[in-house]
Amino acid sequence: MSLYSRLKRILVGKPIHTKHAHHERLPWYFALAVFASDALSSVAYAPEEIMRVLSRADNGFLSLTLPISIGIGALLLIVVSSYFQTIRAYPKGGGSYRVATENLGSIPGRIAGASLLIGYVLTVAVSIASGVLAIVSMAPMTKPYVIEMGVGAVALVGLLNLRGAKESGALFSIPTYSFILLLFGLIVSAAVKSSQGYVAPPYPTMGAVDLGQLALILLVLHAFSSGCAALTGVEAIADGVQAFQPPEATNANRTLIVMAALLCTMFVGISYFAQHFHIVPMNIHAEKFQTVTAQLALAVFGNGALYVMVQIATALILILAANTAFADFPRLSSFIAQDGFLPRQLNSQGDRLVFQNGIILLSLLSIILIIGFKGAPEALVPLYAAGVFISFTLSQAGMVVKLRKMGKYVPMLFSALGCLTTFVVTCIVIESKFSQGAWIILVALAIILAVFAGIKRHYNYLSRELSLSPVDQIEPIKATVLLLVPRLHKGVLHAIAYAESMTRDVRALHVTLDIKGTEQIKKDWNDFGVDFPLVILDSPYRSLIEPITDYIDQALEEDPDQMITVIVPQAVPKHWWQGLLHNNAAVGLKLALASRKNVVVTNVRYFLA
Amino acid sequence: MSLYSRLKRILVGKPIHTKHAHHERLPWYFALAVFASDALSSVAYAPEEIMRVLSRADNGFLSLTLPISIGIGALLLIVVSSYFQTIRAYPKGGGSYRVATENLGSIPGRIAGASLLIGYVLTVAVSIASGVLAIVSMAPMTKPYVIEMGVGAVALVGLLNLRGAKESGALFSIPTYSFILLLFGLIVSAAVKSSQGYVAPPYPTMGAVDLGQLALILLVLHAFSSGCAALTGVEAIADGVQAFQPPEATNANRTLIVMAALLCTMFVGISYFAQHFHIVPMNIHAEKFQTVTAQLALAVFGNGALYVMVQIATALILILAANTAFADFPRLSSFIAQDGFLPRQLNSQGDRLVFQNGIILLSLLSIILIIGFKGAPEALVPLYAAGVFISFTLSQAGMVVKLRKMGKYVPMLFSALGCLTTFVVTCIVIESKFSQGAWIILVALAIILAVFAGIKRHYNYLSRELSLSPVDQIEPIKATVLLLVPRLHKGVLHAIAYAESMTRDVRALHVTLDIKGTEQIKKDWNDFGVDFPLVILDSPYRSLIEPITDYIDQALEEDPDQMITVIVPQAVPKHWWQGLLHNNAAVGLKLALASRKNVVVTNVRYFLA
Repeated sequence: MSLYSRLKRILVGKPIHTKHAHHERLPWYFALAVFASDALSSVAYAPEEIMRVLSRADNGFLSLTLPISIGIGALLLIVVSSYFQTIRAYPKGGGSYRVATENLGSIPGRIAGASLLIGYVLTVAVSIASGVLAIVSMAPMTKPYVIEMGVGAVALVGLLNLRGAKESGALFSIPTYSFILLLFGLIVSAAVKSSQGYVAPPYPTMGAVDLGQLALILLVLHAFSSGCAALTGVEAIADGVQAFQPPEATNANRTLIVMAALLCTMFVGISYFAQHFHIVPMNIHAEKFQTVTAQLALAVFGNGALYVMVQIATALILILAANTAFADFPRLSSFIAQDGFLPRQLNSQGDRLVFQNGIILLSLLSIILIIGFKGAPEALVPLYAAGVFISFTLSQAGMVVKLRKMGKYVPMLFSALGCLTTFVVTCIVIESKFSQGAWIILVALAIILAVFAGIKRHYNYLSRELSLSPVDQIEPIKATVLLLVPRLHKGVLHAIAYAESMTRDVRALHVTLDIKGTEQIKKDWNDFGVDFPLVILDSPYRSLIEPITDYIDQALEEDPDQMITVIVPQAVPKHWWQGLLHNNAAVGLKLALASRKNVVVTNVRYFLA
Repeated sequence: MSLYSRLKRILVGKPIHTKHAHHERLPWYFALAVFASDALSSVAYAPEEIMRVLSRADNGFLSLTLPISIGIGALLLIVVSSYFQTIRAYPKGGGSYRVATENLGSIPGRIAGASLLIGYVLTVAVSIASGVLAIVSMAPMTKPYVIEMGVGAVALVGLLNLRGAKESGALFSIPTYSFILLLFGLIVSAAVKSSQGYVAPPYPTMGAVDLGQLALILLVLHAFSSGCAALTGVEAIADGVQAFQPPEATNANRTLIVMAALLCTMFVGISYFAQHFHIVPMNIHAEKFQTVTAQLALAVFGNGALYVMVQIATALILILAANTAFADFPRLSSFIAQDGFLPRQLNSQGDRLVFQNGIILLSLLSIILIIGFKGAPEALVPLYAAGVFISFTLSQAGMVVKLRKMGKYVPMLFSALGCLTTFVVTCIVIESKFSQGAWIILVALAIILAVFAGIKRHYNYLSRELSLSPVDQIEPIKATVLLLVPRLHKGVLHAIAYAESMTRDVRALHVTLDIKGTEQIKKDWNDFGVDFPLVILDSPYRSLIEPITDYIDQALEEDPDQMITVIVPQAVPKHWWQGLLHNNAAVGLKLALASRKNVVVTNVRYFLA
């Protein structure tokens, strides 16, 4: 077994037989950990982003946090009830891509697919970056390593996913459920502390900024847009129905409801108490940076074990949230690849039954984002919601069409409400965040759609070009073999025999690099009595390759129908470093002949025992 | 012409025909610029290094600069008179490597060769780094870019050398001769200024440190060792006799004498006036760093055009000095490669008639040194003299043996004196600089000698293993061809014809990755009526490669004498990016089959027009 294979076994595990495919399915309580960690973990950053927007105008506006959070909770319920229909209608997995393609056509489908792909990459980047900030809040000495920690976490999650989904589910349940318990504990304790007459310290600066009505509305919309990042994980469950244990749809819907209930409660609870405790979001570059959740936990629990546990659980669920994207991005890209809009390689399951290429691609893209944005989730959040809400809208529009066809008018109303709401929210998000980066999403979308189209065109062209027609037939070819011999030695004998076995028209080629060598091989060739002729090529510029390409070009000019095989004997030394002591003519020759049709370059190796 | 070829033409120039080899020779005045710039340029740093050692004890000891410089001048004359004999005895080029090998045996020869190779790399690093400091002295704002400037200069000199020697000679004469003129101008002007009653300012600190006699002797030896860096360029002329116009020996000796006279005068002159003008060498990290030469030029010429010209000429000759090594390192390594101690590739002249691989190797090694030592020549100087003086000693010991055999006793005495002196100096340098880095040279020497031995052993083994004996004969082989077909399309037809042309035992292999595809190809294969059978291989772990390697292993087990050719049809798309849309099975398959004898993997390409 090669070093690569051994390393792969250690990191990724043994191959899994295709017949086990069915068993790599998740029971709903594990699926909650895998598919809902994204949505649930947004509690750790979405309230903070709402408050950040408000406090930038003035700390006084922080009292708007709760109403905005309730608005987002309502939006969540609308979206979830719409997705409830989707999962029922698509028990085999109904991501936006599939739903929009089937009901609205290919182009809306591709737009939905592309915006989801962008969304998943951003999910990984935002979640991991926020998770790292939870650690930094608790342990400020780690602050200089924000980027390194982020990259390391992405690599870790990627690797776990290469191992396969079932193991991930079991592994990821503990931190997800710990997070849920700890956050409910935090909310309850905060309620107890308030009821015991706790009075929050006043806000650091409490100016009396007075905004006009329009500016106030814009501020609220802006804050609302930031908070919409909380909804980005909802799609994941509908997209991943296939990974649930049967009955898939029922289990998926159960998970969806549990997730929505948990998320709403935690989101509104944290927002309420963050506002009640007069917590102000900090600048990431502040010396003693702490997230809003960390500040609240510190105020409620004090600097003890519970505070540390909240931080660790937050960090873990955020890093696991990235896992949601790792469960779904590869699946979605394999759907899209099946339809010919992405490279086929994304549709091949590896020996661990996972779409390994998609996992690797997602890891690389999100690592680039984390490095590019220096590990600051704040800068990524404006991009985040924009992409996801486009696919929400399209998916629900597709459901409206489908449910109308099916004659199910009540569910259709839910979907129509969802579609309308998310369409309005999409417009709000793009409008209010345009200059802060939402335009990047539109540009990226356009590029991805162009790539989709280019790939599809190539595959269409291929199947047109390569499909057999009744007039096609196999035409016998005239084979010519040219054997390269720098000098006659034992290693070449085998290649001579190989060349002779191929065809009758064999010639040996020798390029004169020094005259002594040429005299020697002429003599040896005669003495040894090889059955085919030796052709000597001059090389006035001491190049090995040009005389050969010239000779081949001339031969092809004389008879364009022949097929020329160039055989290059190649020594295979025992140790890799010995390879440095041999010229490797075949590589250069292959490059030089790359554009010539009817030429095949073959290495015949001889082993130095 | 490919992009690579076009770029190479622009940077390096058109190929030069072998018949022009003789014309790439230098007249002596150009050769002085190419081969003596190393030695001459040492005036720019060797006095400074002597003074640096002395001033570290106390500025009062700077009065020892002149006597030490005179000592080094005397040493230079002894070494030069010894090399005079060498050039006469070896008109075809007598570097230490050749002289020591012929007269003392292979091992002393290799030691001399290895220490010279080290010396050349250090020459490039020290000269370029010092040249950069000349620029920094003049233009302090360039100081943050010391490493970048050094690396750029090495790349430039390397590129000029890839163009070929003659052009370099013409190009490099102007700065060399400018430097000589300007330094003589500086010395004469300094003499005039002194005679007009100039009184130097007193030394900044003039303590009265009193060293014991032993410590004083050690200080002098230490300073002397640093100054020995001045002699490192002498070998270059003897090593490069072949590059001189005929009569080679006469021209080389003329260059040697002119060089020695110029070097001695400039060295002693600069040392004398640096001492006379109370110049103190500065720490490289000092805020307003200036080299000793820069300080002297500033004191004599004032801050005007002449000062700037001295700095520029110094920088240029130092950067050109690196060129000496570029002229000789590739030649020496080609000698060593001819003897089988270095990879053969170092002995192949490129299409510009230069040893391109040696030039590239030298560039890389010296760039690594410059980056590693952060562009500070001071740190490299202790390493510098140690390597070179080992080869001096061995070369002259070889000459003693040779001249005694020839019965030339008077020249022999010169060589014996040179040998003895340089041996003593070698011991002094290594002893006094051991802890400052001379030990690195000894370690590097040991490693290089081990590499030499390993390479020689491999080549010996090769020629033993591969040489033909009377019992060797070409044994006909039984050829089997396996053609990989993922599906039957137009591109495969050509490969089918190719496979059929090769042998009668052809089988097509299809690996089942999805069942639909397999049913399709079975049907197509029958419908199309291909002459040879289609074998279907199951792949329970969805790998393309493993079922094929298993099949081949089984076939080889059944008949180990057959030669199996695996043909992989490969699509060649019009644009490179389209290549990303195709699986490239051949690469993976070649890797997987790399260790199996009797297997050849061949790509048969089909072009997508």
